[in-house]
Amino acid sequence: MARPDEIRLCAEDALLAELLKEVPLPKGGALGPGDDCAAIPAARAGEMVLLKTDCIAEDVHFRRGDDPALVGWKALCRPLSDIAAMGGVPGQALVTFFSPPDLEGGYWRKFYRGLGRAARKFGVAIAGGEMSRQINGIAVSVALTGTVAKNQLVQRSGGRAGDLVFVTGRLGGSIRGKHLRFEPRLKEGRWLARQGFAAAMMDLSDGLGSDLPRLARASGCGFAIDAAAIPKNRGCSLDRAISDGEDYELLFAVRPAKAERLRRAWAKAFPKVPLSCIGKLTREKNTPAGWRGGWDHFG
Amino acid sequence: MARPDEIRLCAEDALLAELLKEVPLPKGGALGPGDDCAAIPAARAGEMVLLKTDCIAEDVHFRRGDDPALVGWKALCRPLSDIAAMGGVPGQALVTFFSPPDLEGGYWRKFYRGLGRAARKFGVAIAGGEMSRQINGIAVSVALTGTVAKNQLVQRSGGRAGDLVFVTGRLGGSIRGKHLRFEPRLKEGRWLARQGFAAAMMDLSDGLGSDLPRLARASGCGFAIDAAAIPKNRGCSLDRAISDGEDYELLFAVRPAKAERLRRAWAKAFPKVPLSCIGKLTREKNTPAGWRGGWDHFG
Repeated sequence: MARPDEIRLCAEDALLAELLKEVPLPKGGALGPGDDCAAIPAARAGEMVLLKTDCIAEDVHFRRGDDPALVGWKALCRPLSDIAAMGGVPGQALVTFFSPPDLEGGYWRKFYRGLGRAARKFGVAIAGGEMSRQINGIAVSVALTGTVAKNQLVQRSGGRAGDLVFVTGRLGGSIRGKHLRFEPRLKEGRWLARQGFAAAMMDLSDGLGSDLPRLARASGCGFAIDAAAIPKNRGCSLDRAISDGEDYELLFAVRPAKAERLRRAWAKAFPKVPLSCIGKLTREKNTPAGWRGGWDHFG
Repeated sequence: MARPDEIRLCAEDALLAELLKEVPLPKGGALGPGDDCAAIPAARAGEMVLLKTDCIAEDVHFRRGDDPALVGWKALCRPLSDIAAMGGVPGQALVTFFSPPDLEGGYWRKFYRGLGRAARKFGVAIAGGEMSRQINGIAVSVALTGTVAKNQLVQRSGGRAGDLVFVTGRLGGSIRGKHLRFEPRLKEGRWLARQGFAAAMMDLSDGLGSDLPRLARASGCGFAIDAAAIPKNRGCSLDRAISDGEDYELLFAVRPAKAERLRRAWAKAFPKVPLSCIGKLTREKNTPAGWRGGWDHFG
């Protein structure tokens, strides 16, 4: 039972915690399930191999009428966003798709064209895949490898009370089109990790409402938010910026002493990408009053 | 266009070949799509990292009424069978599942229990995963890493005309229950690779009817078959042994000079596992008259 002052697990995280009791987890300095990626010590000393799988399903993450090339782009860019959140460089992808019998001919070729565009842009090789029929609906899973220097790996758990919480870009309204066209923040994530600015980091996929509590909880903290500082996409209410999901922006915690240097260096390195300080991690492990959750697949 | 004397691609392989034109493939000594696993040179000299993804879908690979623990067992054992076919040792798994809203509570816990049983038995750690709703039907994808010494990696392409074709176990009738309970031939695959017996190898997942032409084609050969030598499961016709699929046995090519030594050593190493020589690779690249295909997802 969660203590009343603890951040409550959303249904998806609660199910995951239950399932992981049933299986053997990585050992020996590896980072297992629960972060944006798993990280396994590589044969080369000082290096970690990142492993990530992500998925999209018809009528949940895209519609049949969406351009298949954009769906392919999205299928690869989603796990790339997780590699970005660990400060990593992507490597190889494995692509699995489930194809219903009523799918238009040529769908998968268009899908692979968009996937290939993302792969070339972000330096990914398609190492393999698998295809299967299924009775209803399209579904795709993409598994991805990456690498990161061990001393640059940024976990969700690295934050501590007093850290400032930053977010890249603007939030909310992704359903109007960004969710099919976003660019994963690989350059920004690498830079934050290499420069040592991010103490804890994750990507925003289920919305700030679900994801900020995850980062805080992993870091053993609560959080306080300056609602006015949350960067909203045009036409988005605060509620939507918090709850919409699929932002694919980076959320990260920064030691207060580094914040001013971060702001200056960021403005030079990424002049077109907004950077906002939206609050801080707190010692009290509670969720602010009225905090609204984000997307929860199993809620 | 296939020349008339060439082995024809099945619809699934033809689609794959078309899709792979759209995406960047691994370079620099890597083995990309088309074999049982991809193989990427590892940081440690002389070692290859194996990458594989496989999947199962409701009403294609299992039924809603099947024991979820057996479905979980199968989901992991399928890609393990591919690691076996490369002569590899498995490492970490990433598990993605798509869950319909009408699924009974507790399904995924039972599924993970069976998955965990296979993971412990075959030395796999569950490094991560992803879950999503989908509107209809259960689907699962498992991505798997492995390792193999570079000089022990067995590809489909290593066969040549005159090689004898062997198969482990017995074929056909998997639908009666074996498809949910089989044990991937990891020990046998490692042994064949380490001893240098298998010049080319793959696992039988779509049935001998589809898979033997794949191995022959990859090796630039045709094949001849001694139908009477094909090992059939009890109650299975020759047709079913060739076409049923989901055997998860190893199919491999052996240089004639090594065949007698293989038979003797096999009988000592694996006294309970049948080993059958069912034919040979030929210079003529044709399919024998009357050869019946196996399972083809997109046929």
